[in-house]
Amino acid sequence: MNETLKLIHNRRSVRAYSPKPVTRADKDAILAAAFRAPTAGNLMLYSIIEVEDQSLKDRLAVSCDHQPFIARAPYVLLFLADLQRWWDYFIKCGAPGRAEASGLPNRRPQTGDLMLACCDALISAQTAVIAAESLGIGSCYIGDILEQYETHREMFDLPPYTLPVTLLCFGYPTAAAAKRKLTSRFPGESIVHKDRYRPLDAAAMDHCFGDLENTFRSTARAVQYENAGQEIYCRKFAAGFSMELNRSVGKMLENWK
Amino acid sequence: MNETLKLIHNRRSVRAYSPKPVTRADKDAILAAAFRAPTAGNLMLYSIIEVEDQSLKDRLAVSCDHQPFIARAPYVLLFLADLQRWWDYFIKCGAPGRAEASGLPNRRPQTGDLMLACCDALISAQTAVIAAESLGIGSCYIGDILEQYETHREMFDLPPYTLPVTLLCFGYPTAAAAKRKLTSRFPGESIVHKDRYRPLDAAAMDHCFGDLENTFRSTARAVQYENAGQEIYCRKFAAGFSMELNRSVGKMLENWK
Repeated sequence: MNETLKLIHNRRSVRAYSPKPVTRADKDAILAAAFRAPTAGNLMLYSIIEVEDQSLKDRLAVSCDHQPFIARAPYVLLFLADLQRWWDYFIKCGAPGRAEASGLPNRRPQTGDLMLACCDALISAQTAVIAAESLGIGSCYIGDILEQYETHREMFDLPPYTLPVTLLCFGYPTAAAAKRKLTSRFPGESIVHKDRYRPLDAAAMDHCFGDLENTFRSTARAVQYENAGQEIYCRKFAAGFSMELNRSVGKMLENWK
Repeated sequence: MNETLKLIHNRRSVRAYSPKPVTRADKDAILAAAFRAPTAGNLMLYSIIEVEDQSLKDRLAVSCDHQPFIARAPYVLLFLADLQRWWDYFIKCGAPGRAEASGLPNRRPQTGDLMLACCDALISAQTAVIAAESLGIGSCYIGDILEQYETHREMFDLPPYTLPVTLLCFGYPTAAAAKRKLTSRFPGESIVHKDRYRPLDAAAMDHCFGDLENTFRSTARAVQYENAGQEIYCRKFAAGFSMELNRSVGKMLENWK
Protein backbone atom coordinates (compact mmCIF):
# COMPACT_ATOMS: atom_id res chain seq x y z
CA MET A 1 0.00 0.00 0.00
CA ASN A 2 1.44 3.41 -0.97
CA GLU A 3 1.82 6.29 1.51
CA THR A 4 -1.37 8.03 0.42
CA LEU A 5 -3.50 4.89 0.73
CA LYS A 6 -1.91 4.18 4.11
CA LEU A 7 -2.89 7.55 5.48
CA ILE A 8 -6.43 7.25 4.10
CA HIS A 9 -6.76 3.85 5.80
CA ASN A 10 -5.27 5.08 9.08
CA ARG A 11 -7.28 8.28 9.42
CA ARG A 12 -9.55 8.75 12.40
CA SER A 13 -11.42 11.90 13.38
CA VAL A 14 -9.36 13.86 15.91
CA ARG A 15 -11.18 15.80 18.63
CA ALA A 16 -8.33 16.01 21.19
CA TYR A 17 -5.42 18.19 20.19
CA SER A 18 -1.81 18.26 21.38
CA PRO A 19 -0.34 21.63 22.39
CA LYS A 20 1.82 21.62 19.24
CA PRO A 21 0.65 24.63 17.24
CA VAL A 22 -0.51 24.48 13.64
CA THR A 23 1.93 26.95 12.12
CA ARG A 24 1.15 29.48 9.42
CA ALA A 25 3.21 27.31 7.06
CA ASP A 26 1.05 24.27 7.94
CA LYS A 27 -2.11 26.30 7.37
CA ASP A 28 -0.89 27.59 4.04
CA ALA A 29 0.03 24.07 2.92
CA ILE A 30 -3.48 22.85 3.80
CA LEU A 31 -5.10 25.76 1.96
CA ALA A 32 -2.82 25.46 -1.09
CA ALA A 33 -3.83 21.80 -1.41
CA ALA A 34 -7.52 22.69 -1.00
CA PHE A 35 -7.26 25.17 -3.88
CA ARG A 36 -5.99 22.42 -6.21
CA ALA A 37 -9.15 20.36 -5.67
CA PRO A 38 -11.12 19.81 -8.85
CA THR A 39 -13.94 22.33 -9.30
CA ALA A 40 -16.86 22.35 -11.76
CA GLY A 41 -15.94 24.36 -14.86
CA ASN A 42 -13.00 25.76 -12.85
CA LEU A 43 -15.47 28.23 -11.30
CA MET A 44 -14.42 27.60 -7.66
CA LEU A 45 -17.94 27.89 -6.32
CA TYR A 46 -16.81 27.98 -2.69
CA SER A 47 -15.18 30.12 -0.05
CA ILE A 48 -13.26 29.20 3.08
CA ILE A 49 -13.50 31.22 6.29
CA GLU A 50 -10.47 30.84 8.56
CA VAL A 51 -11.95 31.07 12.04
CA GLU A 52 -9.14 32.51 14.16
CA ASP A 53 -11.12 34.77 16.52
CA GLN A 54 -11.48 32.77 19.77
CA SER A 55 -14.88 34.28 20.53
CA LEU A 56 -16.20 32.86 17.23
CA LYS A 57 -14.79 29.41 18.06
CA ASP A 58 -16.41 29.64 21.48
CA ARG A 59 -19.77 30.41 19.89
CA LEU A 60 -19.39 27.57 17.35
CA ALA A 61 -18.71 25.17 20.23
CA VAL A 62 -22.23 26.00 21.43
CA SER A 63 -24.11 26.52 18.16
CA CYS A 64 -22.83 23.27 16.61
CA ASP A 65 -24.77 21.08 19.04
CA HIS A 66 -22.58 21.78 22.08
CA GLN A 67 -19.19 20.31 21.21
CA PRO A 68 -16.66 22.07 23.46
CA PHE A 69 -13.64 20.65 21.61
CA ILE A 70 -14.37 23.02 18.71
CA ALA A 71 -13.30 25.93 20.95
CA ARG A 72 -9.99 24.16 21.59
CA ALA A 73 -9.21 23.32 17.95
CA PRO A 74 -5.97 25.02 16.85
CA TYR A 75 -7.26 25.63 13.33
CA VAL A 76 -10.86 25.90 12.18
CA LEU A 77 -12.08 26.26 8.60
CA LEU A 78 -15.65 26.96 7.56
CA PHE A 79 -16.40 25.81 4.00
CA LEU A 80 -19.11 27.72 2.17
CA ALA A 81 -20.85 26.83 -1.03
CA ASP A 82 -20.51 30.24 -2.69
CA LEU A 83 -22.33 31.68 -5.69
CA GLN A 84 -22.12 35.19 -4.24
CA ARG A 85 -18.65 35.90 -5.66
CA TRP A 86 -19.81 35.09 -9.19
CA TRP A 87 -23.16 36.76 -8.74
CA ASP A 88 -21.53 40.05 -7.63
CA TYR A 89 -19.20 39.82 -10.61
CA PHE A 90 -22.07 39.12 -13.03
CA ILE A 91 -23.90 42.21 -11.72
CA LYS A 92 -20.78 44.37 -12.03
CA CYS A 93 -20.38 43.09 -15.62
CA GLY A 94 -23.98 43.79 -16.59
CA ALA A 95 -24.27 40.11 -17.45
CA PRO A 96 -27.98 39.44 -16.78
CA GLY A 97 -28.96 42.37 -19.03
CA ARG A 98 -26.59 41.19 -21.75
CA ALA A 99 -28.14 37.72 -21.59
CA GLU A 100 -31.65 39.14 -21.89
CA ALA A 101 -30.61 41.18 -24.92
CA SER A 102 -29.58 37.90 -26.58
CA GLY A 103 -32.86 36.22 -25.72
CA LEU A 104 -31.24 34.16 -22.97
CA PRO A 105 -32.74 33.79 -19.49
CA ASN A 106 -31.95 36.42 -16.87
CA ARG A 107 -31.87 34.29 -13.75
CA ARG A 108 -30.56 34.30 -10.20
CA PRO A 109 -28.71 31.43 -8.47
CA GLN A 110 -30.94 28.41 -7.84
CA THR A 111 -30.77 25.05 -6.09
CA GLY A 112 -28.92 23.36 -8.97
CA ASP A 113 -26.13 25.94 -8.77
CA LEU A 114 -26.12 25.41 -5.03
CA MET A 115 -25.65 21.65 -5.41
CA LEU A 116 -22.70 22.19 -7.77
CA ALA A 117 -21.26 24.65 -5.26
CA CYS A 118 -21.69 22.15 -2.42
CA CYS A 119 -19.80 19.62 -4.55
CA ASP A 120 -16.95 22.11 -5.05
CA ALA A 121 -16.82 23.01 -1.35
CA LEU A 122 -16.79 19.41 -0.12
CA ILE A 123 -14.27 18.18 -2.68
CA SER A 124 -12.02 21.00 -1.52
CA ALA A 125 -12.68 20.22 2.15
CA GLN A 126 -11.70 16.57 1.79
CA THR A 127 -8.59 17.55 -0.12
CA ALA A 128 -7.69 19.76 2.85
CA VAL A 129 -8.31 16.85 5.22
CA ILE A 130 -6.03 14.49 3.32
CA ALA A 131 -3.35 17.19 2.92
CA ALA A 132 -3.47 17.84 6.67
CA GLU A 133 -3.27 14.11 7.38
CA SER A 134 -0.12 13.89 5.25
CA LEU A 135 1.41 16.55 7.52
CA GLY A 136 0.46 14.63 10.67
CA ILE A 137 -2.40 17.02 11.41
CA GLY A 138 -5.70 15.45 12.42
CA SER A 139 -9.15 16.75 11.57
CA CYS A 140 -12.81 16.42 12.41
CA TYR A 141 -15.83 17.34 10.30
CA ILE A 142 -18.63 19.15 12.10
CA GLY A 143 -21.85 18.46 10.20
CA ASP A 144 -23.74 20.41 12.88
CA ILE A 145 -22.68 23.62 11.12
CA LEU A 146 -25.83 23.00 9.06
CA GLU A 147 -27.85 23.85 12.18
CA GLN A 148 -28.62 27.36 13.49
CA TYR A 149 -28.41 29.07 10.11
CA GLU A 150 -29.56 32.46 11.39
CA THR A 151 -26.88 32.45 14.11
CA HIS A 152 -24.09 31.46 11.72
CA ARG A 153 -25.27 33.94 9.10
CA GLU A 154 -24.92 36.72 11.66
CA MET A 155 -21.61 35.45 13.13
CA PHE A 156 -19.89 35.24 9.74
CA ASP A 157 -21.76 37.97 7.79
CA LEU A 158 -22.92 35.37 5.27
CA PRO A 159 -24.59 36.87 2.19
CA PRO A 160 -27.64 35.10 0.69
CA TYR A 161 -25.83 33.14 -2.04
CA THR A 162 -23.49 31.36 0.36
CA LEU A 163 -24.30 28.27 2.41
CA PRO A 164 -22.17 26.99 5.33
CA VAL A 165 -21.90 23.39 4.19
CA THR A 166 -19.23 22.00 6.49
CA LEU A 167 -16.86 22.96 9.27
CA LEU A 168 -13.44 21.40 9.81
CA CYS A 169 -11.38 21.40 13.00
CA PHE A 170 -7.67 20.69 12.62
CA GLY A 171 -4.85 20.03 15.08
CA TYR A 172 -2.06 17.64 15.93
CA PRO A 173 -3.64 14.71 17.77
CA THR A 174 -2.87 13.83 21.37
CA ALA A 175 -1.12 10.45 21.72
CA ALA A 176 -4.42 8.86 22.73
CA ALA A 177 -6.36 10.43 19.86
CA ALA A 178 -3.78 9.21 17.34
CA LYS A 179 -4.22 5.63 18.52
CA ARG A 180 -7.99 5.62 18.93
CA LYS A 181 -9.63 2.50 17.50
CA LEU A 182 -10.66 2.91 13.87
CA THR A 183 -14.44 3.07 13.48
CA SER A 184 -16.04 0.20 11.59
CA ARG A 185 -17.84 0.61 8.29
CA PHE A 186 -20.77 -1.18 6.66
CA PRO A 187 -19.69 -4.09 4.44
CA GLY A 188 -18.71 -2.91 0.97
CA GLU A 189 -21.48 -5.05 -0.57
CA SER A 190 -24.02 -2.89 1.28
CA ILE A 191 -22.64 0.34 -0.21
CA VAL A 192 -21.75 -0.65 -3.78
CA HIS A 193 -24.38 -1.53 -6.36
CA LYS A 194 -23.73 -3.08 -9.76
CA ASP A 195 -25.24 -0.99 -12.57
CA ARG A 196 -28.56 -0.43 -10.82
CA TYR A 197 -29.67 0.47 -7.30
CA ARG A 198 -30.76 -2.63 -5.48
CA PRO A 199 -32.74 -2.07 -2.26
CA LEU A 200 -31.58 -4.35 0.57
CA ASP A 201 -33.73 -7.46 0.93
CA ALA A 202 -34.08 -9.11 4.34
CA ALA A 203 -30.81 -11.07 4.09
CA ALA A 204 -28.87 -8.08 2.75
CA MET A 205 -30.28 -5.94 5.54
CA ASP A 206 -29.10 -8.40 8.16
CA HIS A 207 -25.68 -8.43 6.50
CA CYS A 208 -25.54 -4.63 6.48
CA PHE A 209 -26.86 -3.88 9.97
CA GLY A 210 -25.84 -7.12 11.73
CA ASP A 211 -22.77 -5.74 13.48
CA LEU A 212 -24.70 -2.67 14.57
CA GLU A 213 -27.45 -4.87 16.03
CA ASN A 214 -24.93 -7.04 17.86
CA THR A 215 -23.21 -4.03 19.38
CA PHE A 216 -26.58 -2.53 20.34
CA ARG A 217 -27.64 -5.68 22.19
CA SER A 218 -24.63 -5.41 24.49
CA THR A 219 -25.54 -1.86 25.56
CA ALA A 220 -27.80 -0.58 28.32
CA ARG A 221 -30.09 0.87 25.64
CA ALA A 222 -31.18 -2.64 24.66
CA VAL A 223 -33.59 -2.52 27.62
CA GLN A 224 -35.27 0.59 26.24
CA TYR A 225 -35.54 -0.26 22.51
CA GLU A 226 -36.37 -3.45 20.60
CA ASN A 227 -33.57 -3.01 18.07
CA ALA A 228 -30.79 -0.70 16.89
CA GLY A 229 -33.01 0.89 14.25
CA GLN A 230 -35.43 2.15 16.90
CA GLU A 231 -32.56 3.40 19.03
CA ILE A 232 -30.85 5.32 16.23
CA TYR A 233 -34.12 6.77 14.94
CA CYS A 234 -35.03 8.02 18.42
CA ARG A 235 -31.56 9.10 19.54
CA LYS A 236 -30.46 10.65 16.22
CA PHE A 237 -33.07 10.95 13.48
CA ALA A 238 -35.91 12.26 15.66
CA ALA A 239 -33.65 14.07 18.14
CA GLY A 240 -33.63 17.81 18.67
CA PHE A 241 -30.36 18.47 16.81
CA SER A 242 -31.66 16.61 13.78
CA MET A 243 -34.97 18.49 13.78
CA GLU A 244 -33.00 21.74 14.07
CA LEU A 245 -30.68 20.73 11.22
CA ASN A 246 -33.63 20.10 8.92
CA ARG A 247 -35.35 23.34 9.93
CA SER A 248 -32.12 25.28 9.41
CA VAL A 249 -31.36 23.80 5.98
CA GLY A 250 -34.96 24.46 4.93
CA LYS A 251 -34.38 28.10 5.86
CA MET A 252 -31.07 28.21 3.92
CA LEU A 253 -32.73 26.85 0.79
CA GLU A 254 -35.22 29.73 0.72
CA ASN A 255 -32.47 31.96 -0.71
CA TRP A 256 -32.06 29.74 -3.75
CA LYS A 257 -35.59 29.49 -5.12
CA MET B 1 6.53 18.39 -0.30
CA ASN B 2 5.45 14.86 0.69
CA GLU B 3 4.10 12.31 -1.81
CA THR B 4 0.45 13.00 -1.00
CA LEU B 5 0.79 16.77 -1.40
CA LYS B 6 2.71 16.24 -4.63
CA LEU B 7 -0.06 14.19 -6.14
CA ILE B 8 -2.71 16.69 -5.02
CA HIS B 9 -0.72 19.49 -6.66
CA ASN B 10 -0.11 17.51 -9.84
CA ARG B 11 -3.64 16.31 -10.40
CA ARG B 12 -5.49 17.30 -13.54
CA SER B 13 -8.85 15.98 -14.74
CA VAL B 14 -8.32 13.12 -17.17
CA ARG B 15 -10.75 12.67 -20.07
CA ALA B 16 -8.51 10.65 -22.41
CA TYR B 17 -7.70 7.16 -21.27
CA SER B 18 -4.87 4.80 -22.20
CA PRO B 19 -5.77 1.23 -23.20
CA LYS B 20 -4.32 -0.05 -19.90
CA PRO B 21 -7.27 -1.60 -18.06
CA VAL B 22 -8.32 -0.65 -14.55
CA THR B 23 -8.08 -4.07 -12.93
CA ARG B 24 -10.47 -5.48 -10.34
CA ALA B 25 -7.68 -5.02 -7.79
CA ASP B 26 -7.37 -1.32 -8.74
CA LYS B 27 -11.14 -0.89 -8.45
CA ASP B 28 -11.24 -2.60 -5.08
CA ALA B 29 -8.39 -0.41 -3.81
CA ILE B 30 -10.27 2.73 -4.89
CA LEU B 31 -13.49 1.53 -3.25
CA ALA B 32 -11.75 0.42 -0.05
CA ALA B 33 -10.26 3.91 0.29
CA ALA B 34 -13.64 5.52 -0.39
CA PHE B 35 -15.20 3.49 2.43
CA ARG B 36 -12.65 4.90 4.90
CA ALA B 37 -13.77 8.47 4.19
CA PRO B 38 -15.17 10.20 7.26
CA THR B 39 -18.98 10.02 7.45
CA ALA B 40 -21.42 11.91 9.69
CA GLY B 41 -22.19 9.84 12.79
CA ASN B 42 -20.66 6.86 10.97
CA LEU B 43 -24.00 6.44 9.18
CA MET B 44 -22.54 6.18 5.64
CA LEU B 45 -25.35 8.14 4.04
CA TYR B 46 -24.27 7.28 0.51
CA SER B 47 -24.17 4.53 -2.07
CA ILE B 48 -21.90 3.95 -5.03
CA ILE B 49 -23.12 2.47 -8.30
CA GLU B 50 -20.39 0.79 -10.34
CA VAL B 51 -21.44 1.46 -13.91
CA GLU B 52 -20.02 -1.48 -15.87
CA ASP B 53 -22.78 -2.06 -18.44
CA GLN B 54 -21.58 -0.37 -21.64
CA SER B 55 -25.11 0.60 -22.66
CA LEU B 56 -25.47 2.60 -19.45
CA LYS B 57 -22.15 4.37 -20.09
CA ASP B 58 -23.31 5.14 -23.61
CA ARG B 59 -26.50 6.68 -22.30
CA LEU B 60 -24.60 8.73 -19.66
CA ALA B 61 -22.37 10.09 -22.42
CA VAL B 62 -25.53 11.62 -23.88
CA SER B 63 -27.55 12.49 -20.77
CA CYS B 64 -24.62 14.25 -19.06
CA ASP B 65 -24.57 17.11 -21.57
CA HIS B 66 -23.10 15.11 -24.45
CA GLN B 67 -19.61 14.15 -23.31
CA PRO B 68 -18.60 11.13 -25.42
CA PHE B 69 -15.50 10.39 -23.34
CA ILE B 70 -17.77 9.07 -20.56
CA ALA B 71 -18.62 6.08 -22.78
CA ARG B 72 -14.89 5.36 -23.14
CA ALA B 73 -14.00 5.61 -19.43
CA PRO B 74 -12.65 2.28 -18.16
CA TYR B 75 -14.28 2.72 -14.73
CA VAL B 76 -17.32 4.79 -13.86
CA LEU B 77 -18.74 5.37 -10.38
CA LEU B 78 -22.01 7.10 -9.61
CA PHE B 79 -22.14 8.54 -6.09
CA LEU B 80 -25.56 8.81 -4.50
CA ALA B 81 -26.57 10.68 -1.40
CA ASP B 82 -28.56 7.86 0.19
CA LEU B 83 -31.09 7.96 3.02
CA GLN B 84 -33.03 5.05 1.50
CA ARG B 85 -30.89 2.35 3.14
CA TRP B 86 -31.53 3.80 6.59
CA TRP B 87 -35.17 4.59 5.87
CA ASP B 88 -35.87 1.01 4.78
CA TYR B 89 -34.14 -0.23 7.93
CA PHE B 90 -36.09 2.18 10.16
CA ILE B 91 -39.34 0.91 8.63
CA LYS B 92 -38.33 -2.73 9.13
CA CYS B 93 -37.46 -1.89 12.75
CA GLY B 94 -40.77 -0.14 13.46
CA ALA B 95 -38.75 2.92 14.39
CA PRO B 96 -41.15 5.74 13.47
CA GLY B 97 -43.90 4.14 15.59
CA ARG B 98 -41.51 3.63 18.49
CA ALA B 99 -40.52 7.30 18.31
CA GLU B 100 -44.16 8.41 18.33
CA ALA B 101 -44.84 6.25 21.37
CA SER B 102 -42.09 8.20 23.17
CA GLY B 103 -43.53 11.55 22.15
CA LEU B 104 -40.77 12.06 19.57
CA PRO B 105 -41.46 13.21 16.00
CA ASN B 106 -42.32 10.61 13.37
CA ARG B 107 -40.70 12.14 10.33
CA ARG B 108 -39.44 11.20 6.87
CA PRO B 109 -36.06 12.23 5.34
CA GLN B 110 -35.85 15.96 4.63
CA THR B 111 -33.47 18.42 2.98
CA GLY B 112 -31.19 18.64 6.03
CA ASP B 113 -30.64 14.88 5.95
CA LEU B 114 -30.03 15.20 2.23
CA MET B 115 -27.32 17.84 2.75
CA LEU B 116 -25.56 15.62 5.29
CA ALA B 117 -25.82 12.73 2.84
CA CYS B 118 -24.37 14.88 0.03
CA CYS B 119 -21.46 15.70 2.36
CA ASP B 120 -20.86 12.00 2.99
CA ALA B 121 -21.06 11.13 -0.71
CA LEU B 122 -18.69 13.86 -1.85
CA ILE B 123 -16.15 13.30 0.92
CA SER B 124 -16.10 9.67 -0.15
CA ALA B 125 -15.85 10.60 -3.84
CA GLN B 126 -12.84 12.85 -3.32
CA THR B 127 -11.17 10.15 -1.22
CA ALA B 128 -11.66 7.80 -4.17
CA VAL B 129 -10.14 10.40 -6.51
CA ILE B 130 -7.02 10.84 -4.39
CA ALA B 131 -6.68 7.08 -3.87
CA ALA B 132 -6.90 6.54 -7.64
CA GLU B 133 -4.35 9.30 -8.24
CA SER B 134 -1.94 7.53 -5.89
CA LEU B 135 -2.26 4.45 -8.10
CA GLY B 136 -1.56 6.45 -11.27
CA ILE B 137 -5.23 6.38 -12.27
CA GLY B 138 -6.73 9.66 -13.45
CA SER B 139 -10.28 10.84 -12.90
CA CYS B 140 -12.84 13.38 -13.97
CA TYR B 141 -15.92 14.61 -12.11
CA ILE B 142 -19.10 14.92 -14.15
CA GLY B 143 -21.30 17.54 -12.47
CA ASP B 144 -23.79 17.15 -15.31
CA ILE B 145 -25.10 14.02 -13.59
CA LEU B 146 -27.30 16.54 -11.73
CA GLU B 147 -29.19 17.06 -15.01
CA GLN B 148 -31.89 14.78 -16.46
CA TYR B 149 -33.04 13.42 -13.12
CA GLU B 150 -35.97 11.48 -14.54
CA THR B 151 -33.71 9.74 -17.07
CA HIS B 152 -31.09 8.80 -14.48
CA ARG B 153 -33.74 7.68 -12.00
CA GLU B 154 -35.04 5.24 -14.59
CA MET B 155 -31.59 4.12 -15.80
CA PHE B 156 -30.34 3.27 -12.31
CA ASP B 157 -33.65 2.38 -10.54
CA LEU B 158 -33.09 5.18 -8.05
CA PRO B 159 -35.55 5.14 -5.14
CA PRO B 160 -36.89 8.47 -3.80
CA TYR B 161 -34.47 8.93 -0.91
CA THR B 162 -31.36 8.79 -3.09
CA LEU B 163 -29.91 11.64 -5.12
CA PRO B 164 -27.24 11.21 -7.85
CA VAL B 165 -24.84 13.88 -6.59
CA THR B 166 -21.73 13.22 -8.66
CA LEU B 167 -20.32 10.92 -11.30
CA LEU B 168 -16.66 9.96 -11.56
CA CYS B 169 -14.83 8.59 -14.59
CA PHE B 170 -11.53 6.81 -13.95
CA GLY B 171 -8.77 5.50 -16.17
CA TYR B 172 -5.05 5.57 -16.77
CA PRO B 173 -4.29 8.79 -18.66
CA THR B 174 -2.89 8.90 -22.16
CA ALA B 175 0.60 10.42 -22.30
CA ALA B 176 -0.87 13.70 -23.51
CA ALA B 177 -3.57 13.77 -20.81
CA ALA B 178 -0.98 13.18 -18.10
CA LYS B 179 1.02 16.21 -19.23
CA ARG B 180 -1.87 18.58 -19.89
CA LYS B 181 -1.29 22.07 -18.50
CA LEU B 182 -2.59 22.48 -14.96
CA THR B 183 -5.63 24.73 -14.83
CA SER B 184 -5.20 28.02 -13.00
CA ARG B 185 -7.09 28.92 -9.84
CA PHE B 186 -8.34 32.19 -8.37
CA PRO B 187 -5.82 33.81 -6.01
CA GLY B 188 -6.05 32.38 -2.50
CA GLU B 189 -6.97 35.81 -1.12
CA SER B 190 -10.15 35.71 -3.20
CA ILE B 191 -11.22 32.37 -1.70
CA VAL B 192 -10.17 32.66 1.96
CA HIS B 193 -11.83 35.08 4.37
CA LYS B 194 -10.59 35.93 7.85
CA ASP B 195 -13.27 35.33 10.48
CA ARG B 196 -16.08 36.94 8.48
CA TYR B 197 -17.25 36.85 4.89
CA ARG B 198 -16.02 39.89 3.05
CA PRO B 199 -17.67 40.63 -0.30
CA LEU B 200 -15.15 41.60 -2.99
CA ASP B 201 -14.81 45.37 -3.42
CA ALA B 202 -13.82 46.78 -6.82
CA ALA B 203 -10.09 46.24 -6.28
CA ALA B 204 -10.55 42.73 -4.88
CA MET B 205 -12.80 41.89 -7.81
CA ASP B 206 -10.13 43.00 -10.28
CA HIS B 207 -7.59 40.91 -8.38
CA CYS B 208 -9.88 37.86 -8.44
CA PHE B 209 -11.12 38.03 -12.03
CA GLY B 210 -8.17 39.86 -13.65
CA ASP B 211 -6.53 36.81 -15.20
CA LEU B 212 -9.86 35.62 -16.50
CA GLU B 213 -10.52 39.02 -18.10
CA ASN B 214 -7.07 39.06 -19.68
CA THR B 215 -7.54 35.60 -21.14
CA PHE B 216 -11.02 36.53 -22.38
CA ARG B 217 -9.71 39.62 -24.21
CA SER B 218 -7.40 37.45 -26.31
CA THR B 219 -10.26 35.22 -27.53
CA ALA B 220 -12.62 35.59 -30.47
CA ARG B 221 -15.49 35.97 -28.00
CA ALA B 222 -14.21 39.42 -27.02
CA VAL B 223 -15.94 40.77 -30.12
CA GLN B 224 -19.28 39.43 -28.95
CA TYR B 225 -19.23 40.34 -25.24
CA GLU B 226 -17.99 43.40 -23.32
CA ASN B 227 -16.29 41.36 -20.60
CA ALA B 228 -15.67 37.85 -19.30
CA GLY B 229 -18.58 38.09 -16.85
CA GLN B 230 -21.06 38.55 -19.70
CA GLU B 231 -19.46 35.73 -21.65
CA ILE B 232 -19.54 33.23 -18.78
CA TYR B 233 -23.07 34.20 -17.77
CA CYS B 234 -24.33 33.70 -21.34
CA ARG B 235 -22.24 30.66 -22.21
CA LYS B 236 -22.61 28.84 -18.88
CA PHE B 237 -25.00 30.33 -16.33
CA ALA B 238 -27.88 31.04 -18.74
CA ALA B 239 -27.09 28.15 -21.10
CA GLY B 240 -29.39 25.22 -21.73
CA PHE B 241 -27.42 22.70 -19.67
CA SER B 242 -27.48 25.04 -16.68
CA MET B 243 -31.21 25.68 -16.95
CA GLU B 244 -31.72 21.91 -17.18
CA LEU B 245 -29.47 21.31 -14.16
CA ASN B 246 -31.53 23.69 -12.05
CA ARG B 247 -34.81 22.23 -13.28
CA SER B 248 -33.57 18.71 -12.58
CA VAL B 249 -32.30 19.47 -9.06
CA GLY B 250 -35.58 21.24 -8.28
CA LYS B 251 -37.35 18.03 -9.26
CA MET B 252 -34.99 15.91 -7.10
CA LEU B 253 -35.65 18.08 -4.06
CA GLU B 254 -39.39 17.42 -4.24
CA ASN B 255 -38.77 14.01 -2.67
CA TRP B 256 -37.25 15.56 0.45
CA LYS B 257 -39.94 17.98 1.58
